[in-house]
Amino acid sequence: MPFYSDIQKPTLILNEARCRANIARMAEKARRNTVRFRPHFKTHQCAAIGDWFREWGVTAITVSSVDMASYFAGHGWRDITIAFSLNWRQIEAINDLAGQIHLGLLFESPESLAYAGAHLTHPVDGWIKIDSGAHRTGIPFQNTEEVIALAGAMAQSGRIRLKGLLTHAGNTYHASDRQAVVSIYQESVAHLKNLAGNLEQAGYMGVEVSVGDTPSCSLVDDLLGVDEIRPGNFVFFDAMQWQIGSCTEEEIAVGVVCPVVAHHAERNEIVIYGGAIHLSKEMISMDGHSCFGLVAYPTQDGWGKFLPGAYVSSLSQEHGLLKVAQEDFHRIQIGDLLVVIPVHSCLAVACLQYYVTSKGTTLNSFRSDYS
Amino acid sequence: MPFYSDIQKPTLILNEARCRANIARMAEKARRNTVRFRPHFKTHQCAAIGDWFREWGVTAITVSSVDMASYFAGHGWRDITIAFSLNWRQIEAINDLAGQIHLGLLFESPESLAYAGAHLTHPVDGWIKIDSGAHRTGIPFQNTEEVIALAGAMAQSGRIRLKGLLTHAGNTYHASDRQAVVSIYQESVAHLKNLAGNLEQAGYMGVEVSVGDTPSCSLVDDLLGVDEIRPGNFVFFDAMQWQIGSCTEEEIAVGVVCPVVAHHAERNEIVIYGGAIHLSKEMISMDGHSCFGLVAYPTQDGWGKFLPGAYVSSLSQEHGLLKVAQEDFHRIQIGDLLVVIPVHSCLAVACLQYYVTSKGTTLNSFRSDYS
Repeated sequence: MPFYSDIQKPTLILNEARCRANIARMAEKARRNTVRFRPHFKTHQCAAIGDWFREWGVTAITVSSVDMASYFAGHGWRDITIAFSLNWRQIEAINDLAGQIHLGLLFESPESLAYAGAHLTHPVDGWIKIDSGAHRTGIPFQNTEEVIALAGAMAQSGRIRLKGLLTHAGNTYHASDRQAVVSIYQESVAHLKNLAGNLEQAGYMGVEVSVGDTPSCSLVDDLLGVDEIRPGNFVFFDAMQWQIGSCTEEEIAVGVVCPVVAHHAERNEIVIYGGAIHLSKEMISMDGHSCFGLVAYPTQDGWGKFLPGAYVSSLSQEHGLLKVAQEDFHRIQIGDLLVVIPVHSCLAVACLQYYVTSKGTTLNSFRSDYS
Repeated sequence: MPFYSDIQKPTLILNEARCRANIARMAEKARRNTVRFRPHFKTHQCAAIGDWFREWGVTAITVSSVDMASYFAGHGWRDITIAFSLNWRQIEAINDLAGQIHLGLLFESPESLAYAGAHLTHPVDGWIKIDSGAHRTGIPFQNTEEVIALAGAMAQSGRIRLKGLLTHAGNTYHASDRQAVVSIYQESVAHLKNLAGNLEQAGYMGVEVSVGDTPSCSLVDDLLGVDEIRPGNFVFFDAMQWQIGSCTEEEIAVGVVCPVVAHHAERNEIVIYGGAIHLSKEMISMDGHSCFGLVAYPTQDGWGKFLPGAYVSSLSQEHGLLKVAQEDFHRIQIGDLLVVIPVHSCLAVACLQYYVTSKGTTLNSFRSDYS
């Protein structure tokens, strides 16, 4: 295991082949459905990985913060949607960006629209953020009048061109099977298309529909004529997506390699150097227990299959506690490395900030280059 | 609010006066009990804050990783215990440190002791890590023979001087009131002193006892003649410690300032720019719901009292969702700032990596200076 030999502490490893295959699969699905593929880069947060999307003709991306938009603009991306409600306090940086690139912003309130109308110095695309059922944020899809009023305010604003309706159907993350995901997707698209029809009747023509959570974009074959998809997590997947059914085990492209530092035979527990500051405290429920990650052995160029019955059962700041089956307990020695498949890859990336590929290359992410 | 006016994005703010008072209180308690105060620096992770401890005569510290030890050694600390089971893969960095400073290491297995015995190039202090009931890691306190055998192996090792027995009674974090914390502390100290007595009978004289979780060190007045305390979190406290009862609201010294980006009147919810990558996903249960942080208004030099009934109810990567009472809902406008008291300050510090004080000074932490 040559690329593992230099690893001394919790390290994010990237299986480049799987990651490229995940990109190819999603790009191909978008092409087949004739929708714009505007991948969310908040998962990988990495200019080098971003470049792998260019090979599929991707020119438009999504990010989750103004800083991340600046980072990717600095790496040559010229069409960026900040899929986060306008943060008034970063209006200067937003104006800088809008002067350089084709920028998309999200609006969901007349207050933010008025603020942007008064302070933007360059034209931007305006997306109306719709809550299609996830109840995080956005205008509830039922509030047609509110959506039409916001479109009207946008038309008045001068700098903000109404581009479309955008949703993140995050409720797919709580779906228990493929059919449930497909149903949520179909409903969510129907709500947005219905609203687009209402806007058309009100005189706003050509309003686009943008959707994009990873479970939907992975599990739905027919994207139903939406204009744009914005999935992000699919680039790596993780234990949560595997549990939802968005991916197979063999499609997961990142793991966190952790040194074993202790073991406790009386309870078949392994202690690793790898805690909440490396994996994040994102948790899924699995067979009735809390799971903070799945576990595999390192292999020549990545990691093997999940160890049956093994999982990260608790995390403190730097320690991880693993439950393992008895036969694995006896195979694992202090000083060994184990690979933990994070529950939520986006958060593990934000924690660890750089990748090591199986070729031994280090790829920096946004947070290690820019903070 | 002059120091708030420049804040554009989620920012960790430090109330220096409270932090200094927390340090003073704990240093004074250690002095009164004639115990060595070896504070854990994994909470603040910051050389500048570390210097505030020197004013109380602190010369010995605890850290949670080899990298953190190197960082603080680089800032003039000459007596450091790495309170984490030996990570074999960092033996080179450990040897570098042991050649420069007085280094303490934790041992809990014959394997790691043998590894260290064979690879250490300089003398170190050896602490035997005891599990006094938290069941994270360490030799269970009942296993007297195992402890004596490890002391024997240490004596044979040449480079490792048996310094003492060390525990982290993390089970106090699950205590429901002060008396429960005090009982756990007393039991945990009794276990260690009992083991120290057994070691003495076996010929190992002067074995020290080191304890140190924040609930115990905050709530116990009589430290019962231990040799050393190693609390860390008390420097800031947080919502979890407040819930346990380790601190008052007015002793919490860090908050995360977050811009308000949306609001939803139909459910009295506020959306902030401030998510899992800023606060961590550490969670407490409060009045039957999940709580990812408490909420306060900014004031001239810090923040006010917790808003009654308000809490962070969910976090995604960059979004926080806050439930607030109706009267507060109407006071809070988009573009405002709110202060979130994190559930776990150590993790919020690891996420945000620098502090802004009420004087507007920026203090970098370990992770922004060293990675």
